[in-house]
Amino acid sequence: MNAEQKIAALEAELAKLKAQYSAPEVSPLAPVSGFPDLPVVRGVRFASGAAGVKYQGRDDVMLMVCDAGTSVAGVFTRSATRSANVLDCQRKLALGAGDGPVAIVVNSGNSNAFTGREGDNSVAAICNAVADVSGVPAERVFTASTGVIGERLPHDRIIAKVSELHGDLSVDGAAGAAHAIMTTDTFAKGAAVSINIGGEAVEIVGFAKGSGMIAPDMATMLVYIATDANVDQGVLQSILSDLNEGTFNSITVDSDTSTSDSLMLVATGKSDAPRIMDADSSDAIAFADGLRDVMLDLSHQVVRDGEGATKFLEITVRGAASEASAKTVGLAIANSPLVKTAVAGEDPNWGRVVMGVGKSGEPADRDKLSIWFGDILVAENGWVSSSYTEEAGVEYMKNADLKITCDLGVGDGEATVWTCDLTHQYIVINGDYRS
Amino acid sequence: MNAEQKIAALEAELAKLKAQYSAPEVSPLAPVSGFPDLPVVRGVRFASGAAGVKYQGRDDVMLMVCDAGTSVAGVFTRSATRSANVLDCQRKLALGAGDGPVAIVVNSGNSNAFTGREGDNSVAAICNAVADVSGVPAERVFTASTGVIGERLPHDRIIAKVSELHGDLSVDGAAGAAHAIMTTDTFAKGAAVSINIGGEAVEIVGFAKGSGMIAPDMATMLVYIATDANVDQGVLQSILSDLNEGTFNSITVDSDTSTSDSLMLVATGKSDAPRIMDADSSDAIAFADGLRDVMLDLSHQVVRDGEGATKFLEITVRGAASEASAKTVGLAIANSPLVKTAVAGEDPNWGRVVMGVGKSGEPADRDKLSIWFGDILVAENGWVSSSYTEEAGVEYMKNADLKITCDLGVGDGEATVWTCDLTHQYIVINGDYRS
Repeated sequence: MNAEQKIAALEAELAKLKAQYSAPEVSPLAPVSGFPDLPVVRGVRFASGAAGVKYQGRDDVMLMVCDAGTSVAGVFTRSATRSANVLDCQRKLALGAGDGPVAIVVNSGNSNAFTGREGDNSVAAICNAVADVSGVPAERVFTASTGVIGERLPHDRIIAKVSELHGDLSVDGAAGAAHAIMTTDTFAKGAAVSINIGGEAVEIVGFAKGSGMIAPDMATMLVYIATDANVDQGVLQSILSDLNEGTFNSITVDSDTSTSDSLMLVATGKSDAPRIMDADSSDAIAFADGLRDVMLDLSHQVVRDGEGATKFLEITVRGAASEASAKTVGLAIANSPLVKTAVAGEDPNWGRVVMGVGKSGEPADRDKLSIWFGDILVAENGWVSSSYTEEAGVEYMKNADLKITCDLGVGDGEATVWTCDLTHQYIVINGDYRS
Repeated sequence: MNAEQKIAALEAELAKLKAQYSAPEVSPLAPVSGFPDLPVVRGVRFASGAAGVKYQGRDDVMLMVCDAGTSVAGVFTRSATRSANVLDCQRKLALGAGDGPVAIVVNSGNSNAFTGREGDNSVAAICNAVADVSGVPAERVFTASTGVIGERLPHDRIIAKVSELHGDLSVDGAAGAAHAIMTTDTFAKGAAVSINIGGEAVEIVGFAKGSGMIAPDMATMLVYIATDANVDQGVLQSILSDLNEGTFNSITVDSDTSTSDSLMLVATGKSDAPRIMDADSSDAIAFADGLRDVMLDLSHQVVRDGEGATKFLEITVRGAASEASAKTVGLAIANSPLVKTAVAGEDPNWGRVVMGVGKSGEPADRDKLSIWFGDILVAENGWVSSSYTEEAGVEYMKNADLKITCDLGVGDGEATVWTCDLTHQYIVINGDYRS
């Protein structure tokens, strides 16, 4: 090998190593089709703009205003150190029913979390400003902030933009709003379904951000869903809370919980569909089915943009003592760093799945446990399956989308959770930004 | 730059990158003094040898025999999928008191976990073989296995060595035993204290393995402690279980739980110290103090050999609603991948500590929470401390041994836990071994 060839070989090896240990600009699991077209939801308008909270040269604030007659529901982080915004939203939702107009204002670049009493003051100031310009009562203005924590939110910059945002409100502004709330997301996340309730078309449109990270922030997840269905507020909250368990509360990237996670759902009632007053009615079930599709789609996109993710992993646990037990076992597997690094390494390491079942603390029986990777039966009767070959396992693990199924053999409980792998890129994103 | 210089520069860059992303042969947190001298414990003899279970060219089995008059106690993994060996040990200990002789036989290279009924048969065959050669009743022979899981334990190889091991038993064989049970530990772990009970010298000697990993194994931790104190079995078990909460049950490397974790403690009664019959007596307290020192020392060594560890992190939570609550909060922080990657990146990211407090689900109040890094007050009254500077935080994080203290301000509960950082090396060790 001459000097030139040697230099070329060294450069190639260096480039390969650097690629292996650096975070990609766009997740390899991003949808190839890009951000979806979102249909108009009657009664909701969106605007976005650049307030310069922290980022320069991009939109960082979005305003969403819903006409009078809107029901609103929400689910939030259970963190004991939740942000001022979350506490304010929860207080307002607890005030109960009502169908006035609704406004939601969200900024990226600063999470307003752990900012003491100043944080509460910032929320109040923003809500009052939005109320002034929009006519929406301040008690029906909801906020969220995502970005750096522990720094005072420069709420004056947001307030200075409120008038302009209000003037820009548009029925087709959802895509812009979805982009404005991104932090270090590598792609914007949107989803929509059109359903039929009582013979009338109803749209359900949603967008989300997460689980990108901005130092020294936490992986906040924000989700906003709007529909023109006509739904009583109590029913809306009940459907949302119920669906949340099997969607956003069934995903995990790294087991950590943000101080700011928020999901808000507004129903404007501006479609011609009949009003839904009973969560058990066929109309409610049709609505919930459509809403589930949007929530599942968005929650999976959040996992696919998990920091450093190169594999999307669905884990189904069945034969558990109960549904709750199945979910606990599923999350024990999904949150196991040993499982997640094995998946990253394309290693069919079923022993770590056994370990995950064991550590969950839930009822299980070694001799009744069966494990599948995709359709491949890996283990049964407390031992590796006689039909299993390591070659088949290795081949299966090369897929980007993977499915692990465990049958515990002790009951009828079943649950599915979703996660991603744990890679060098996760460490790069979360540990290396000072180097 | 000429071709030669260019090649040298590229080679240097390549070497630097490779060093950054490869696991060190010995943990940078290994004790600089090496394996300690372990004093003789009267009434206990050790032997080790090479049975060729899996490893070649190194010892992989140890035998420990205690004279008649020995009390024995143990604590084990709570995993629902625990190994045949653990189940057998637990069954035998549950048979209750007795002060006959005791034997313990441990192999590395194969964990005998998730090997179905064959695993139970292997344990019985080994115990019978040890009973035959040593005269120790099979019901007082205890076993552990650590290494690859899901493969039949070749117990014939161990049984073939039992006679030779029995012939080699020696009072100063503890160091050899400590080395024989290692899997991918980067250093052997031993600790000893000499105490005084009733004016008589008593030795407490222990060794441990963990949390090294051998593909596709789990991070099994095994600990054996011997003393010549004279302790009633019920009291011995009570002291051990109590101390375990604050030592081995207060450490975490990656939140995962092995199917095989075992800690066994034997007390031969061969010192001249008076027999301890009451866990509240001053003699019992003196004994427990010494035992705690050995257990803390060994548990910290396990963390220091945590896979990929470059930082040793002590987390104290005080002002919690209860001691249990403090420990839950401490482990939530210690197991947070976001905290652990920040520590690896030498980032004084107190926001992630706030997040860890919040996600624990335990009572906390944003406005009463205080956080220290070492002696540096970082946050108080729900916000960053006015005296805190980022420069001081960055400088502190450069230490290899770090201490984080949280005061929740809601009660009197206090607990301390220990962990290590989450680095590229963890991913290399657990995810990369196929590449």
